Amino acid sequence: LTVSAAALGGIPEVGVGVDLAGVLAAAAETVGGLRDGDILVVAHKVVSKAEGRVRHLSDVRPGEPARRLAAEQDKDPRHVQVVLDEAADLVRAERGVLICRTRHGFVCANAGVDASNAPTAGTVVLLPEDPDASARRLRARLRDLTASAPAVLVTDSFGRAWRHGQSEVAIGCAGLSPLDDWRGRPDAGGRTLRATWIAVADQVAAAADLARAKDSREPAVVVRGLERHVTVQDGPGAAALLRGPAEDLFR
Amino acid sequence: LTVSAAALGGIPEVGVGVDLAGVLAAAAETVGGLRDGDILVVAHKVVSKAEGRVRHLSDVRPGEPARRLAAEQDKDPRHVQVVLDEAADLVRAERGVLICRTRHGFVCANAGVDASNAPTAGTVVLLPEDPDASARRLRARLRDLTASAPAVLVTDSFGRAWRHGQSEVAIGCAGLSPLDDWRGRPDAGGRTLRATWIAVADQVAAAADLARAKDSREPAVVVRGLERHVTVQDGPGAAALLRGPAEDLFR
Repeated sequence: LTVSAAALGGIPEVGVGVDLAGVLAAAAETVGGLRDGDILVVAHKVVSKAEGRVRHLSDVRPGEPARRLAAEQDKDPRHVQVVLDEAADLVRAERGVLICRTRHGFVCANAGVDASNAPTAGTVVLLPEDPDASARRLRARLRDLTASAPAVLVTDSFGRAWRHGQSEVAIGCAGLSPLDDWRGRPDAGGRTLRATWIAVADQVAAAADLARAKDSREPAVVVRGLERHVTVQDGPGAAALLRGPAEDLFR
Repeated sequence: LTVSAAALGGIPEVGVGVDLAGVLAAAAETVGGLRDGDILVVAHKVVSKAEGRVRHLSDVRPGEPARRLAAEQDKDPRHVQVVLDEAADLVRAERGVLICRTRHGFVCANAGVDASNAPTAGTVVLLPEDPDASARRLRARLRDLTASAPAVLVTDSFGRAWRHGQSEVAIGCAGLSPLDDWRGRPDAGGRTLRATWIAVADQVAAAADLARAKDSREPAVVVRGLERHVTVQDGPGAAALLRGPAEDLFR
């Protein structure tokens, strides 16, 4: 079995309201066009920009909690206000990083609010309002444009509790089984696998990230060879990957 | 840029003392043989088995703490004793899972002690004593056998604090830069990237895992297209990915 990940070139800076599916379908021509069974992996920033999920810091009036936290953590109080607006819960604030649970349920730094690769200085990019819905819309539009139905993944890079560095994870998906459950199935020796429950969508996000450089305009990658995980139905989305607060072992 | 991951077929059950590098080099002939710039990703279980890191439960005398914990968590007290032997620290015990910090510093379920894909019933497989050293030894032996020096990654699948499912991560590596640090480098718009520090080794582990099925005897995968992360020197190993207890935000 061979799995491949190829970055799509030629994607211009994306502005609000752009037909992102059209841009992606055109860019995919460089890798032979999109086909059924492909997984199109898209960094959330272009999705957020196309959806207008950008805030100008000059429009933000930080409240008292944001000012206090910003002073404590040596951050811009307007940026902190946007983070608090996006956060359901502040998990931890330490060394300038605000680890939040977002309104979607993702636990990540700064509630996903980020200034790098923002459209202009003084703006920050937010996560999409509903990344699973973003993935479903992109997939539906790609189906119209290309007569094929690749799975669509929307991704971001998250830190990890016990390991250095970030890994790309799925924050939205459509047409991909996000988890592959081997619990109860036999291993190669016929013994029952107990805890094997593979986060396929996150592994696909990580694989795709390896195919692009962070300074290049390559927000999209086509992953091939994983037809077995691609579904006709859009499925449960990346929401299925979330541990709810009740299952969180670290509260 | 295209990255590919291909599983190696034809790897027999590995016993203690086997020349694992020889087995892997032979299996790699099915993908054109190993070359400089390749990354050979090996599931730790075959490494552990070749190194004799297997315990027979019938040889284990559980002590009082293991008996108590086993009763509480509804587990085999002998298995729990082996877990405690491998653990430097029990982080949390809940719903039958013992989340431990291993002596190496990995935070994972059951200190990496696992019965699935074990050589025979009644045995459990441990993590290698020093997975970075295992990777270095495999790489040195592959260099002798094949006159090429692929990077070597030793991997295991770990759960995550806030997300369901497991993702494959690097527990040992040689010849691969485990982290790619973009902090301070410019993004596509010329703005400084603040927090971009990519866990390359973990993403390679995840990509490789997608190329194999858990019930197949495919413990090894060759990843190509990442020559830019492969180094002549063996480098710091997967130990560089560990957050020390002092940096752990969740204690």
